[in-house]
Amino acid sequence: MASSSTIIIRLEIRKSAISFGEVAVTIGACGGDIVATDVIRSSPETAVRDITVQVPDTRREALVSHLSSLQGLKVVNVSDRTFLVHLGGKIEVTPRMPVKNREELSHVYTPGVAKVCRAIHEDESKAFSLTIKRNTVAIVSDGTAVLGLGDIGPYGAMPVMEGKAMLFKQFAGVDGFPICLATTDTEDIIRTIKNIAPGFGGINLEDISSPRCFEIEERLKEELDIPVFHDDQHGTAVVMLAGMLNSLKIVGKRREDVKLVIVGIGAAGVACAKMLIAAGFRNVICVDRHGAIAAGEAYANPMWSWLAEHSNPHGERGGLDEVIAGADIFLGVSGPGVLKTEHLQRMAKDPIVFAMANPEPEIDPEAAEPYVRVMATGRSDYPNQINNVLCFPGIFRGALECRARSINEPMKLAAAEAIASSVSEDELSESYIIPSVFNEEVVQRVRTAVIQAAIDTGVARRIPRDFR
Amino acid sequence: MASSSTIIIRLEIRKSAISFGEVAVTIGACGGDIVATDVIRSSPETAVRDITVQVPDTRREALVSHLSSLQGLKVVNVSDRTFLVHLGGKIEVTPRMPVKNREELSHVYTPGVAKVCRAIHEDESKAFSLTIKRNTVAIVSDGTAVLGLGDIGPYGAMPVMEGKAMLFKQFAGVDGFPICLATTDTEDIIRTIKNIAPGFGGINLEDISSPRCFEIEERLKEELDIPVFHDDQHGTAVVMLAGMLNSLKIVGKRREDVKLVIVGIGAAGVACAKMLIAAGFRNVICVDRHGAIAAGEAYANPMWSWLAEHSNPHGERGGLDEVIAGADIFLGVSGPGVLKTEHLQRMAKDPIVFAMANPEPEIDPEAAEPYVRVMATGRSDYPNQINNVLCFPGIFRGALECRARSINEPMKLAAAEAIASSVSEDELSESYIIPSVFNEEVVQRVRTAVIQAAIDTGVARRIPRDFR
Repeated sequence: MASSSTIIIRLEIRKSAISFGEVAVTIGACGGDIVATDVIRSSPETAVRDITVQVPDTRREALVSHLSSLQGLKVVNVSDRTFLVHLGGKIEVTPRMPVKNREELSHVYTPGVAKVCRAIHEDESKAFSLTIKRNTVAIVSDGTAVLGLGDIGPYGAMPVMEGKAMLFKQFAGVDGFPICLATTDTEDIIRTIKNIAPGFGGINLEDISSPRCFEIEERLKEELDIPVFHDDQHGTAVVMLAGMLNSLKIVGKRREDVKLVIVGIGAAGVACAKMLIAAGFRNVICVDRHGAIAAGEAYANPMWSWLAEHSNPHGERGGLDEVIAGADIFLGVSGPGVLKTEHLQRMAKDPIVFAMANPEPEIDPEAAEPYVRVMATGRSDYPNQINNVLCFPGIFRGALECRARSINEPMKLAAAEAIASSVSEDELSESYIIPSVFNEEVVQRVRTAVIQAAIDTGVARRIPRDFR
Repeated sequence: MASSSTIIIRLEIRKSAISFGEVAVTIGACGGDIVATDVIRSSPETAVRDITVQVPDTRREALVSHLSSLQGLKVVNVSDRTFLVHLGGKIEVTPRMPVKNREELSHVYTPGVAKVCRAIHEDESKAFSLTIKRNTVAIVSDGTAVLGLGDIGPYGAMPVMEGKAMLFKQFAGVDGFPICLATTDTEDIIRTIKNIAPGFGGINLEDISSPRCFEIEERLKEELDIPVFHDDQHGTAVVMLAGMLNSLKIVGKRREDVKLVIVGIGAAGVACAKMLIAAGFRNVICVDRHGAIAAGEAYANPMWSWLAEHSNPHGERGGLDEVIAGADIFLGVSGPGVLKTEHLQRMAKDPIVFAMANPEPEIDPEAAEPYVRVMATGRSDYPNQINNVLCFPGIFRGALECRARSINEPMKLAAAEAIASSVSEDELSESYIIPSVFNEEVVQRVRTAVIQAAIDTGVARRIPRDFR
């Protein structure tokens, strides 16, 4: 699973010494694949060209140094396409209408704006119609658990949050704005988010390490009247559940009957367990380093105490080696190498394996292939990617449109079912249990299901036109 | 100075009973001025029309009720153009490039984004090139001193901050994002802004009441390495100084020689006094409720103690009635009615009056007209509007481009001179001392002057290409 990059090599070519054809042959011989070329400048003697090349990361340095060594060729510059895409940031803040003259200025700014301010001051709920609160979500991180990179701080986290803001807009028309925090203190994070909340219609927590993320989310949910959603937990759980529901259709089993083993009981693991239990899975067994979480044990973490009471109904003990016996489903949110082929061989018929550790799954999908019926991962280079992008745009789209006070369990379940339903019975197969993130229907289905659930559970403060 | 609004009246007209011409005559007779009309629906019997009408606020209700009383006419709806402009908020967050397929997604989000995150984690200064920090300013208010409306809270403040974000983008290409705070505690505000600072390249403080605004700005300037600029203070002072410099050209006096009286020593008044002193005005006298601030007195407010030492070189005592005698310039940042025509008659030859109280100036411009040579106000409906919009877009444009650590006194002076220089010698007159906010040259001139001053004073961390 070698990773590769798209790089742009700027070359100055002395025409009398070397032809572009020879350069192209050399690049190919070094493992590079030419994607595009542009002529930047050309004179009778020399040409400057930008050559976009896809090259395995392991061969990149050799390619560049080989080009540098050639007679008549000068490597002016090498830039990485991914870095170029990030130059200057990936989002911008734009006016929804132009301000071209004094009359327009007087409406959007002083003096006209004063009456709008006064109207909101008199009735705070008008902020939902007369300000960006209507459609804006803060994407908040302290940078302590970014992707697989760990604690890389608020500056390092920014590119992910900006990317998320792009996806919010692109997929669901939601205005997301990244807020990366220069603090990791639980109370300080809670206070800061509460302080900046007035301008936002929702808070998307992101990449905050466990166990602080639990308390931060719980407290904010209690203390704010807008949705607070820790995407690493609930986004993952919602999309996982969607895939799980479709997997069960393939193997013809019912959620009430299956035995499901979860390994890795961090933020995402806890959320997945709670979601599965809420969805009606009866035999869920949570396994961490110390073995299966079971009733009768004492746990320091209150989440684990809750799980001990609500999961593992038969009180199974031991590690994965023990509890995997006869399991219908393995769900991994842990790390690479946790699951072995021996485990797969001891599962029930038609094993379902969700190996969601990123970037390296709990088992190499190729190694697992002969033993499993349905396999899903967090990766985009295998079928059945469990990708949060399927959830957060639509769930916030729905929550914002109905001015939901929160995103509750029924709304999340409705979102999961909506995602699952985006794959039709005809399309459904072992390698297609979950729709593509570019399937435009997903957001619409999730939106509709979430709004209906919000109305049904009484958290909607507005009934959108198509629900009246 | 009656204010008027643009309203949109939706009328259902029964054609057999009344003609559109009769409706138009009625609107005119009620003091309304028809700006536009649209036909929404029309059948042989009835027509539904939207009629956009400019009407004095005092006559608005009478107009609508008169229309309602007419035979064959139904007022379906009346909406205010200003409110319509604000519906749903005035800004949005948009991707700088589309994410249309899996390949693009892999660059802007996982897995590609990881290497950008890692690069920033290794060298934090890369956040300036690889994230929105490069070009983004937080527009922060606690809503305690919004326009002339006072403490209307964070929700009420949002429309102003959004308007400001529009102007940042429209005039200078700066991405401004509004952050309205649910706290008015000085320490809490400072901590919150420090916590959210990593994603921003600058902080524009706005509409925070005095004296908290002084400490908040001072502390943030010390504790952050990005520009912090309280616009109500420094934006006002910069534009005021620009107008003052051009006024002096008209009356042929030198800044070293004039006697200048400031009335109203709040946030803006203090900033104006400091700016004028920094610019070389020698005889500045600051007058508040208790009279002229003078050396030898004890003041609780440290700002006033500073002013006592640095202004009023001849130790003049008493209120405006006393110190106005022989003054060349009156500068008001107080409230309506403070300045009388008797005062004007006791000033030196060619009085310059900046009556900047908003929305009602210290003296009615029409009443003052016979006695003054140059008059400026904060209003858009008189000549010479002292409008912050002339300063903040360009000053932040410059500060961001050179990655300034702060916006210091020389940068502000440079901005003032740049604004003043945007009015050519030919154009300069009593009624044109300050350029229009729609003069596109202003931002460019301010930008260039500010960058040069930042480089000269060593606060620039990057030299823009055109300065190399």
